[in-house]
Amino acid sequence: MALPPTVQWLPREPSVFIIDQTLLPSELHQVHLRSVAEVAEAIKVLRVRGAPALGCVGAAGIALAAVLSSAADTESLCAELAAAYEVLAATRPTAVNLFWALNHMRRLWSSWTGDLPGLVAALGAEAQAIIDDDLQRCRCIGRHGAELIPDGGRVLTHCNAGALATAGYGTALGVIRGAVEQGKKIHVWADETRPLLQGARLTAFELAADGIPCTVLCDNMAASLMAAGFIDCVVVGADRIAANGDVANKIGTYNVAVLCRYHDVPFYVAAPFSTVDFALDRGNQIPIEQRGAEEVSQLGGFSAQAVVPKGVEVYNPAFDVTPAELVTAIITECGVARAPLGESLRRLSRA
Amino acid sequence: MALPPTVQWLPREPSVFIIDQTLLPSELHQVHLRSVAEVAEAIKVLRVRGAPALGCVGAAGIALAAVLSSAADTESLCAELAAAYEVLAATRPTAVNLFWALNHMRRLWSSWTGDLPGLVAALGAEAQAIIDDDLQRCRCIGRHGAELIPDGGRVLTHCNAGALATAGYGTALGVIRGAVEQGKKIHVWADETRPLLQGARLTAFELAADGIPCTVLCDNMAASLMAAGFIDCVVVGADRIAANGDVANKIGTYNVAVLCRYHDVPFYVAAPFSTVDFALDRGNQIPIEQRGAEEVSQLGGFSAQAVVPKGVEVYNPAFDVTPAELVTAIITECGVARAPLGESLRRLSRA
Repeated sequence: MALPPTVQWLPREPSVFIIDQTLLPSELHQVHLRSVAEVAEAIKVLRVRGAPALGCVGAAGIALAAVLSSAADTESLCAELAAAYEVLAATRPTAVNLFWALNHMRRLWSSWTGDLPGLVAALGAEAQAIIDDDLQRCRCIGRHGAELIPDGGRVLTHCNAGALATAGYGTALGVIRGAVEQGKKIHVWADETRPLLQGARLTAFELAADGIPCTVLCDNMAASLMAAGFIDCVVVGADRIAANGDVANKIGTYNVAVLCRYHDVPFYVAAPFSTVDFALDRGNQIPIEQRGAEEVSQLGGFSAQAVVPKGVEVYNPAFDVTPAELVTAIITECGVARAPLGESLRRLSRA
Repeated sequence: MALPPTVQWLPREPSVFIIDQTLLPSELHQVHLRSVAEVAEAIKVLRVRGAPALGCVGAAGIALAAVLSSAADTESLCAELAAAYEVLAATRPTAVNLFWALNHMRRLWSSWTGDLPGLVAALGAEAQAIIDDDLQRCRCIGRHGAELIPDGGRVLTHCNAGALATAGYGTALGVIRGAVEQGKKIHVWADETRPLLQGARLTAFELAADGIPCTVLCDNMAASLMAAGFIDCVVVGADRIAANGDVANKIGTYNVAVLCRYHDVPFYVAAPFSTVDFALDRGNQIPIEQRGAEEVSQLGGFSAQAVVPKGVEVYNPAFDVTPAELVTAIITECGVARAPLGESLRRLSRA
């Protein structure tokens, strides 16, 4: 069974058509988002998540705002688009791809010199281009990264940086798919990824759909696997990469990176350049989203009762920052960046 | 609200009377175990858990078998007790305290030279002595360990090594209680401890009952806390300690120990000598219990639906082994063992 596309822009509907990832793995359900408010809600509650996918859905959200608008002139439309920008930008703070895509769309409308219908059409075409482009970038990441994965490789990943987190194919899982397409035999160990279980629910689902062998583990079990010599390398995605190569990614990623250093296991990050924020020098400048206690206390919404006693405080940051010094390499669509990562990323970005 | 005792031996009932820990934190329910089979079931499904508590309940299980017996002579009773020993010993393989207590009881009955009623009474008295003794050992551990905890200390713990895991007071949480009794201000960070959530459900419950400030986090969040300088030390319990100081404890403990090494945070283990298995040279000889996939896929039983797709494999070891070299100190009832841990433990055990 092949997965449908994660994010589609349907101008005739009009809607942004997504897989509702909160229902996986028990239900593969696609939903039409028919307003900017619905797009924003879907991002906030993680019906669609994953840094590159948020870029796609952000762009499509702007295209949707343009199609839905009854503005009489370009100036009025641009005011409405600016409002849509604010609504979409206020959803989640950490993944930079969302802002990258929104700014990309804004540059288009703010420099537009043509007529109103032309702008609406151009915004739609641009959203579609961002989606198509993301898929191509993922395939390039997969090709570059596959070289790093040994045949017979036992690869640990954290969270979901797969087709579901992108326009398709995936970043970290793109690397694994690339290796499999090269004929390599790969076994994936998928951290379940508390609190919202993207590893257990989404990564395992995707890999099972592709027939790639996978074992799910609790996040705290990876250390004992590494001590036993069962992990050859780690590949994860990223939500934002600072100019020096510090990586913000799903909470728990930094934990895995420390384990890799201690056990001498390569730690790879796979991400397109839309994830690299050259405006930030270091990872400690990346805003980290704090989420609600109920994600922890009610087990990602899967428990009807609270497993944390009433009145007890809960800590729930959505991301952590892995310093560049713990990152073996960053796999981009333009090639593989290695230490010094900042310099290497700048060089690749200009290539 | 004070917790009732974790394990009580009620000879007149007769029963082993426990708190059913599977129902916490939503329900504080005590249950009478009225047969050896009920005791064994309670151990297997973790109604009662924690290495020292398993020693207490194992001893009480033998006392229960003796009281329930209709054997006409000492020899027949001893045969029944040997059968009860096997049933109880077959429940869980890792925590050595269970075997320690069962062997303790067997030495009593196999060397018994008195009459039948005398043996039954002696076994009951011995079970009660093991329970009373465990509580005293925990208080001694608390006193020794409290010296290691700074005033204002922010202490991370994993799983539950508290009153619920012992006859009362706790080992790791005994150290925290000891520090609080010295007038120190302590904040506890409690790893939720997947898959069965003993940290979220039990540690937080106990500490809230005692009014000790506590914040629950997912296991994968501890690394970012340490990177931010928010953790002053870690204290955990143990299920079995090898002669060289290698420590088997709840899965994820080794992960925390690696994080401590990387972040230069002291890593303390608190356990009574009934947890030290001098017959095993090294931790790799400790049998590690593997448990069912559903604990992971159904979130410790708290989710009605599986969060891991059907057909996907799950890895679920109940324990891991932390090598002695990562352990800053082992806090026992006889004092604090430091490197070289094996030698230090032997010296303290003879004191």
